[in-house]
Amino acid sequence: MITLYWAPRSRAGRMFWLLEEIGQPYEISVVDFRSDPPVHPEGFADASPLRKVPAIRDGDTALADTAAIALYLADRYAPGRLAPAPDHPDRGPFLFWTFYSPSAMEPAMTEKFLQIPPNPASYPWGSFDRMMSAIEDRLEGRDWLVGDDFTVADYMVGGALGFISQFNMAKLSPRQQAYADRCAARPAAKAGAARDAEETARLG
Amino acid sequence: MITLYWAPRSRAGRMFWLLEEIGQPYEISVVDFRSDPPVHPEGFADASPLRKVPAIRDGDTALADTAAIALYLADRYAPGRLAPAPDHPDRGPFLFWTFYSPSAMEPAMTEKFLQIPPNPASYPWGSFDRMMSAIEDRLEGRDWLVGDDFTVADYMVGGALGFISQFNMAKLSPRQQAYADRCAARPAAKAGAARDAEETARLG
Repeated sequence: MITLYWAPRSRAGRMFWLLEEIGQPYEISVVDFRSDPPVHPEGFADASPLRKVPAIRDGDTALADTAAIALYLADRYAPGRLAPAPDHPDRGPFLFWTFYSPSAMEPAMTEKFLQIPPNPASYPWGSFDRMMSAIEDRLEGRDWLVGDDFTVADYMVGGALGFISQFNMAKLSPRQQAYADRCAARPAAKAGAARDAEETARLG
Repeated sequence: MITLYWAPRSRAGRMFWLLEEIGQPYEISVVDFRSDPPVHPEGFADASPLRKVPAIRDGDTALADTAAIALYLADRYAPGRLAPAPDHPDRGPFLFWTFYSPSAMEPAMTEKFLQIPPNPASYPWGSFDRMMSAIEDRLEGRDWLVGDDFTVADYMVGGALGFISQFNMAKLSPRQQAYADRCAARPAAKAGAARDAEETARLG
């Protein structure tokens, strides 16, 4: 059984979508950050060295970080479906795009939010505008970032685009908006959002 | 044959260390960022959507981003040696620590460098100090981050610690310094640094 360390109104909320895509049984373990000090359930500190959610435990292994968890679960439980095999030509772009969100999108979003002047030559993410235009270029003639079907690379990038749009950080292009909508329309995305809302409501 | 897209005095320099650890034949393809516009060798733009080095091509696949490349090469050419298998209990922590550098260390270093006030509750990387103390805790009683031997998680974190120390961003603790030294003492690390210096000198 997979355990999701989850907290209401946190980055862990999106993890339900991923778990629904994977299709393995899972349960949640609530981390209460509102208490002082926060209440850490058994095993959480070991799974998440920075004490952040989401984190998961799966038998004898445990880890944190959305992209790392997405890759772990896809390789373990959905190889060839949500993650190309290590010797498949799609594996290279797949890994690049799966880690595009933490490596490029999140720092570029922070740059924009904090109004840090862009420095495309020095910063690994280029700049917010370059980060967005690379997605625009990649989606030309494609429904999904890699291959013909949804993978966890889309879970990562499509989800982050949805966040950018939702918080009005930038206006998505028509192509980006259609892609973000395609991601959000997946049954697992809808089921995941519903589960997150339900668990949040249950905690009061 | 693996092709490394490389430029002198860039983040690609560290990639020689990784390639020496992997032990596969490789060649380099120089990206000339000093020209205006930069000279992009064949295939580079496809491998690296943000036009950043390092990037690699390996047969029909290509990708950029140091951590993604490290994971790609380890899974493909050194499974069970530089990367635990997807069903091994070490796989979870391995993925977390392999992506700790882009997800936590780089943004925390930017935060410190730009003197952005830390906001551990909101930022996924916590803060620079939390980022460093998580490494300190993990290394208690361990020579390497995961299992009994060096993996590409150590390539990523040990290399970033070396960078932090080299540029005086923070003083490493004795345990962190010993670990960074252990990483830097690897024959592949030394061979890689020598190759980077040699290629840089050859370009004049």
